[in-house]
Amino acid sequence: MTNKLVNTIQQFKLFKHCSGSFHQSLASQARILDLQKGKLLFIHESEAERFYIILNGWVKLFRETLDGAQAIIDILPANHIFGETAIFQDNKHSYSAEIVEQANIISLPLDLLKSEIESNPKLAISMMSSMAQCRRHQSQELENRTFKNAPQRIGCFLLRLIDPDQSGSVSIHLPYDKTLVASRLGMQPETFSRALNQLKKQINMNVNGSTLKINNVTDLINYTCSSCSSEFPCHELRS
Amino acid sequence: MTNKLVNTIQQFKLFKHCSGSFHQSLASQARILDLQKGKLLFIHESEAERFYIILNGWVKLFRETLDGAQAIIDILPANHIFGETAIFQDNKHSYSAEIVEQANIISLPLDLLKSEIESNPKLAISMMSSMAQCRRHQSQELENRTFKNAPQRIGCFLLRLIDPDQSGSVSIHLPYDKTLVASRLGMQPETFSRALNQLKKQINMNVNGSTLKINNVTDLINYTCSSCSSEFPCHELRS
Repeated sequence: MTNKLVNTIQQFKLFKHCSGSFHQSLASQARILDLQKGKLLFIHESEAERFYIILNGWVKLFRETLDGAQAIIDILPANHIFGETAIFQDNKHSYSAEIVEQANIISLPLDLLKSEIESNPKLAISMMSSMAQCRRHQSQELENRTFKNAPQRIGCFLLRLIDPDQSGSVSIHLPYDKTLVASRLGMQPETFSRALNQLKKQINMNVNGSTLKINNVTDLINYTCSSCSSEFPCHELRS
Repeated sequence: MTNKLVNTIQQFKLFKHCSGSFHQSLASQARILDLQKGKLLFIHESEAERFYIILNGWVKLFRETLDGAQAIIDILPANHIFGETAIFQDNKHSYSAEIVEQANIISLPLDLLKSEIESNPKLAISMMSSMAQCRRHQSQELENRTFKNAPQRIGCFLLRLIDPDQSGSVSIHLPYDKTLVASRLGMQPETFSRALNQLKKQINMNVNGSTLKINNVTDLINYTCSSCSSEFPCHELRS
């Protein structure tokens, strides 16, 4: 089991420049979690001792406002790491994390990551690259809230789900339920429904439950990216 | 001149853990820029060779959409560093930078910073802390766009300008013109004017040009922070 884990860990881009002995140490202190939808992994402001790698499933990062509304920071798919930035925030989590689709997750000790960062500048640079990517992604989200209308914001979300080399007709399956997609995009469910209908009218698209069929992906790109500072396929695209 | 510059550079939190010889090297390759309002320092996607420290004045970081609208990423005051994350983005700037109030800026070589990061993990950790802070700030901005109404978003902007220990009546001077404050908050100027009027009605506030007088800062805090995931004074507050 540990050997398989070592293999999994060393395949992660973040750990590419770390030594075999670091991969071994991480694996020996790893726990594999099998978590159901709705499970809260940690909460905002709690003491952070572990960080996490998603093997499969989806994880929602969020905060709660004083009146109980959820502000979604991100919804992460497989191969994403989370909880690691607590190192730079007095070992406190700056968000809560909840499983939104049944997930297998590797839990790893934060102190080991911290000491490796302190002695391995290549790991530090990999982490900074990933943080810079996250910053660009958030800037793009802020821009989207200002300049894209609701149908265009849905279009941008859909473009993240397709292979950028695809052309012609495409079929997209929403990765999680529509209410969650709406929250992820900072919309009320009713706004999302209306905007999806408007998008259908703008481009030739059929909606069947969670499956969307688009006749020509170029129409979606032209409609979505016309009021954006990036051109498709942009650096900021990621699920 | 170089000695004075060395002093200035070593006072920056980011460079606290760097050696005297690194401070010297930076200072010897520094240029002091005296820039007027409207000056474009660099543009989005251009090759990055320098990074910058603001000594005084204000700098706008932005991107332009295909149809010419400006998406403002941040407006930075004195003591902020910018352009440094190009290291992690193939040495290309991921935004444009323009002077919005006459500014004195130190321009420094990126390659020197990069080589120091590669050999000094403490500098790397300081940079990561600053990037994590920026990430929290952006998450807060995204949350604000979702859950705060326009007057509350203005309130949040105003709270960043006051000393958190102040109580009772406060006087706030807007740091740059109202049109720019509106853009910074992702609002049209008309929306900003209407929202400012609404805020005046919600709390006891007088507006005289760029100076705002608030009778009781607690009213502003209660009104602004009621639909937020953070309590005043929050970690995310910064100009």
